[in-house]
Amino acid sequence: MKTVYSTDHAGHSGHLELIAGKIVPGFESPSRADFIHERVLETRLGPVIAPDEHSLDTAHKVHDADYLAFLEQAWARWTAEGQSGPAMPFVWPTRGLRGDVAPTNIEALLGFYSFDGGASFVEGTWKAIKSSHDTALTAAGLVADGERAAFALCRPPGHHAGSRFSGGYCYINNASVAAQWLRDNGAARVTILDIDYHHGNGTQEIFYRRDDVQVINLHGDPHTEYPFFLGNADECGEGSGDGFNHNFPMPAGTGWDDWSAALGEALKRLASYKPDAVVISLGVDTFERDPISHFKLKTEHYPAIGARLAALGLPTLFVMKGGYAVEEIGINAVGVLTGFEKG
Amino acid sequence: MKTVYSTDHAGHSGHLELIAGKIVPGFESPSRADFIHERVLETRLGPVIAPDEHSLDTAHKVHDADYLAFLEQAWARWTAEGQSGPAMPFVWPTRGLRGDVAPTNIEALLGFYSFDGGASFVEGTWKAIKSSHDTALTAAGLVADGERAAFALCRPPGHHAGSRFSGGYCYINNASVAAQWLRDNGAARVTILDIDYHHGNGTQEIFYRRDDVQVINLHGDPHTEYPFFLGNADECGEGSGDGFNHNFPMPAGTGWDDWSAALGEALKRLASYKPDAVVISLGVDTFERDPISHFKLKTEHYPAIGARLAALGLPTLFVMKGGYAVEEIGINAVGVLTGFEKG
Repeated sequence: MKTVYSTDHAGHSGHLELIAGKIVPGFESPSRADFIHERVLETRLGPVIAPDEHSLDTAHKVHDADYLAFLEQAWARWTAEGQSGPAMPFVWPTRGLRGDVAPTNIEALLGFYSFDGGASFVEGTWKAIKSSHDTALTAAGLVADGERAAFALCRPPGHHAGSRFSGGYCYINNASVAAQWLRDNGAARVTILDIDYHHGNGTQEIFYRRDDVQVINLHGDPHTEYPFFLGNADECGEGSGDGFNHNFPMPAGTGWDDWSAALGEALKRLASYKPDAVVISLGVDTFERDPISHFKLKTEHYPAIGARLAALGLPTLFVMKGGYAVEEIGINAVGVLTGFEKG
Repeated sequence: MKTVYSTDHAGHSGHLELIAGKIVPGFESPSRADFIHERVLETRLGPVIAPDEHSLDTAHKVHDADYLAFLEQAWARWTAEGQSGPAMPFVWPTRGLRGDVAPTNIEALLGFYSFDGGASFVEGTWKAIKSSHDTALTAAGLVADGERAAFALCRPPGHHAGSRFSGGYCYINNASVAAQWLRDNGAARVTILDIDYHHGNGTQEIFYRRDDVQVINLHGDPHTEYPFFLGNADECGEGSGDGFNHNFPMPAGTGWDDWSAALGEALKRLASYKPDAVVISLGVDTFERDPISHFKLKTEHYPAIGARLAALGLPTLFVMKGGYAVEEIGINAVGVLTGFEKG
């Protein structure tokens, strides 16, 4: 399996995040991608290639134009106003306030286009976002060109980014852009299967009214688990998207048996949709020692997941998402991929 | 004029606020109220009395029950989960996420019920909120009992608190609860006139569909000025509230001439509504040296404002709001009141 990777992510560093009343260094650090990259080399998964440059045309089909422009300009506008340090939202249009009129102030725009304090901007953020986007599209191209599978080693991740909101370390929804690109390049139906611990709220929101991209999420129960506010089992899609969104929320503490059973049901629904391609939002923060998540999967389970995905027999694009136990993230993420290769 | 005041606000201290990517000590400090109280004594404005205890029955008519319960329980729930330091939101239900289902997690609830990182909770916060609420209602009682005017020296302030959101240093909307109480105790119509620099977004939201409480705001343009997202001139009320909400947004840098003209138009609309009582949201952060606001009023203007309010000839309740130039806040706030007394 080929891996697409660029070191351009590394400039997205020194960013901070707001969590539980404190501003702390971002958990989503450059070393995360480094560990995975090293493990790809170590296991001889396959060639590592650099991404081609891609336009934002496909991204414009899943994100609003004003939101994409904001992402690109945020850091420059922040520093132009004399601010120093990472740009972070602190005021947002909650229920009862207006979300229909974009303010002009950069501080207000940060809140207008976000759902948390976890996706701050530093000087290298946009370059990393764009590189991550290009990485996903380049890997999608490999799959469209006939590869059985490809691995987009994206950083920053994307599944929390919605049509017009960032959050949870995510800015552009790489998996959604890749799914859209596959749709535009021969696939009539695409499934996005998100196995990250955290619900892919952005991915759900983007495709909620569409029937050409099935979205399946396995994740921590949103009543108690971040990112909250979306991911309940009764959210099945709306309009022509009704029946094409599937959520499998599970309580904190869930171990392999229950998680595996949920994956089984998810794969049944995926198979019955008969997609032409599958995009896996590959999070390995389901790992028992992940510092910010609460499932109990063990290292041995990740190759088993990969084997079951391989058994679908469908062109498969892996897009890297979460995982914060940095020492094991490489082992577990690449464990899924090697399990797939052998599967 | 009698002043209602309690030192129970003082426990709301050591709280922090998130602003422009940094967590800093709350601008809305206990010393704000101390300065005003001292000035009330110094100018011999009139007797200072302690608030009576009031139930939350009236507050329940302007706030949702689950929101009030959250305010009361927030600190205990935060510490019960092992958190230390002020409780502050960091994830919120933006557009596209669900705002209709309350999560169970306290971290999520902090974001569910807020629009910014400016209304954090410490141990003494609820006691201060309740005392501030009681202060407003006690002062409203004085006006209902026939006093020409009364001054509710409330802290924390309230005008940014909506039916189910906190923010901007505000938790319970004291002026709105007082207006509701006046409505329930003989006044057929009440006007809330908000002269704080910042738009009273909570007050507008609470009464937006009602015709029995007219809401008038003079404030910084929400396109560029905090709290953003509400306060445009075209927001006139909805349903039976249509025509009873009046916004006078003005650009940063506005001085006395333009501000005074806007006040003139506001007072015209107020008079034509023929309210039985007036509640003034008394902010003096319109002052030229206020550290977080951008109008250019001078100390000499505050008594002039008071005189013009007196000329309405209506029972008037002053409810203390913003003002962060602590040395002058007492002089300017009490300047409005002494100007009213002489008017």
